[in-house]
Amino acid sequence: MTISIIGLGLIGGSFAKDLRIAGLATELLGVDSSQEHAARALQLGLVDRLVSLDGALQQSDVILLAVPVNAIETLLPRVLDAIRPTQTVIDLGSTKFLLAEAVRQHPNRDRYVAAHPMAGTENAGPDAALAGLFKGKTVLLCDLEWSAPDACKTALELFYAVGLKFEFMTSEQHDRHAAYVSHLSHVVAYALSLAVQNEEKAGYAVPRLAGGGFASTVRLAKSSPEMWVPIFKQNREHVLKAIDAFSERVQELKRCLEANDFDKLEALIREANQIRNLL
Amino acid sequence: MTISIIGLGLIGGSFAKDLRIAGLATELLGVDSSQEHAARALQLGLVDRLVSLDGALQQSDVILLAVPVNAIETLLPRVLDAIRPTQTVIDLGSTKFLLAEAVRQHPNRDRYVAAHPMAGTENAGPDAALAGLFKGKTVLLCDLEWSAPDACKTALELFYAVGLKFEFMTSEQHDRHAAYVSHLSHVVAYALSLAVQNEEKAGYAVPRLAGGGFASTVRLAKSSPEMWVPIFKQNREHVLKAIDAFSERVQELKRCLEANDFDKLEALIREANQIRNLL
Repeated sequence: MTISIIGLGLIGGSFAKDLRIAGLATELLGVDSSQEHAARALQLGLVDRLVSLDGALQQSDVILLAVPVNAIETLLPRVLDAIRPTQTVIDLGSTKFLLAEAVRQHPNRDRYVAAHPMAGTENAGPDAALAGLFKGKTVLLCDLEWSAPDACKTALELFYAVGLKFEFMTSEQHDRHAAYVSHLSHVVAYALSLAVQNEEKAGYAVPRLAGGGFASTVRLAKSSPEMWVPIFKQNREHVLKAIDAFSERVQELKRCLEANDFDKLEALIREANQIRNLL
Repeated sequence: MTISIIGLGLIGGSFAKDLRIAGLATELLGVDSSQEHAARALQLGLVDRLVSLDGALQQSDVILLAVPVNAIETLLPRVLDAIRPTQTVIDLGSTKFLLAEAVRQHPNRDRYVAAHPMAGTENAGPDAALAGLFKGKTVLLCDLEWSAPDACKTALELFYAVGLKFEFMTSEQHDRHAAYVSHLSHVVAYALSLAVQNEEKAGYAVPRLAGGGFASTVRLAKSSPEMWVPIFKQNREHVLKAIDAFSERVQELKRCLEANDFDKLEALIREANQIRNLL
């Protein structure tokens, strides 16, 4: 089948690499609003040809939307307007509910499959594309009852080919889950980066002295605002609740220190340690 | 030279592995208050022989203290009481000021070198020992003006042999640095783990769905209370200040979301991204 990838960055580029390895696409077409990214993706061999969005819609069996979520919001209705009943469009965005609402009544809604592969790195652009990025990770598939069975089958084939495991939920459940297990981690890393950089300016903390622990905790703070501001905007309510829940636990740990209550601190750390059983 | 390692866990065991590879020790002796850990370390070949603390003090040129910081606080004065002018004791603990004060007036203070290698993992015990753990990392060396030149030279030889880079500072500077670049990261990871686990119990967030981002941010939450409660206790003042500085940045990000001020959110994320230049 012919697969078009809209957005040739980390996620789109990594999909392109893995789909090529899996041998599932007879031809991989690429679309990117940045001429520089598009040219680089072609140079790296991520896609076979560059086309326009209209070209992709005319020539593809499957259209993968791998752009920031604000761009998906604009693109998806336009793609559904033009899509034929033999084609499938799949989005790979990190938020789902707002998008689900936006196309809920669209006559071609059943050609669309809403998906969120829980994989990524802190890097962006075609050069960040990584073969095997999705292997063993999970793709959250949302509201599949609104997608045509053949569209679901096509999407599952693609995701299976790149090594993803499946989980099914509503777009509303998705956004709450994602707020905790993905979006909150980014807020935390951004805040940690800002706090440590501020100390750096005051001449005290020196991140270059830091070991692997700090690097690991702060890693997501390298993620770009182009991708993340639209995510926070679209999932604002859930992210705000997750920030409050997190802040309350920070304060709880702080109160143990203030009160010299090291028994309680130990109990909380033991509870936190149990994340070993969940990851 | 004969080197004794007191504490055969992640740090002590990893030092043993790298010292053996470097060929610096004619014999490696091991001490551990846990018989189980001691036997396992011997079985793994981390050390050549198990000895008592007194045995280590009698037979070694160098004594490395690789136990939790509360145990270092108890052990170091005892080791200094018995140490000979040809021997060197080095501690590898994560806090420094309280310890520095405790032995400042000891007649054998100059046989002691205060060090903190900024390397580790979230795992503990002899099985967590990792060859190459220290390679390319930094060791913070504190108050070297109070250590004898030959003791400094011995310590630097050992640290150089395992691939560590050197940074020099006072124990007071160390504790403030460490609060930001190491201890705060642990508080943040513990709080994130607690918040997400709470959602898990409510049936919403599901950490097993999480991608690499959450796993990276929360990794340090697996670190044991045996090691970390004493660190927080000994560096309480600086950790409390670091928590406040961090919490203020979380609230700043939250206020952007509450006020729908996405321009300011973008600016803060761009600032946070600059951690790329420091790591």
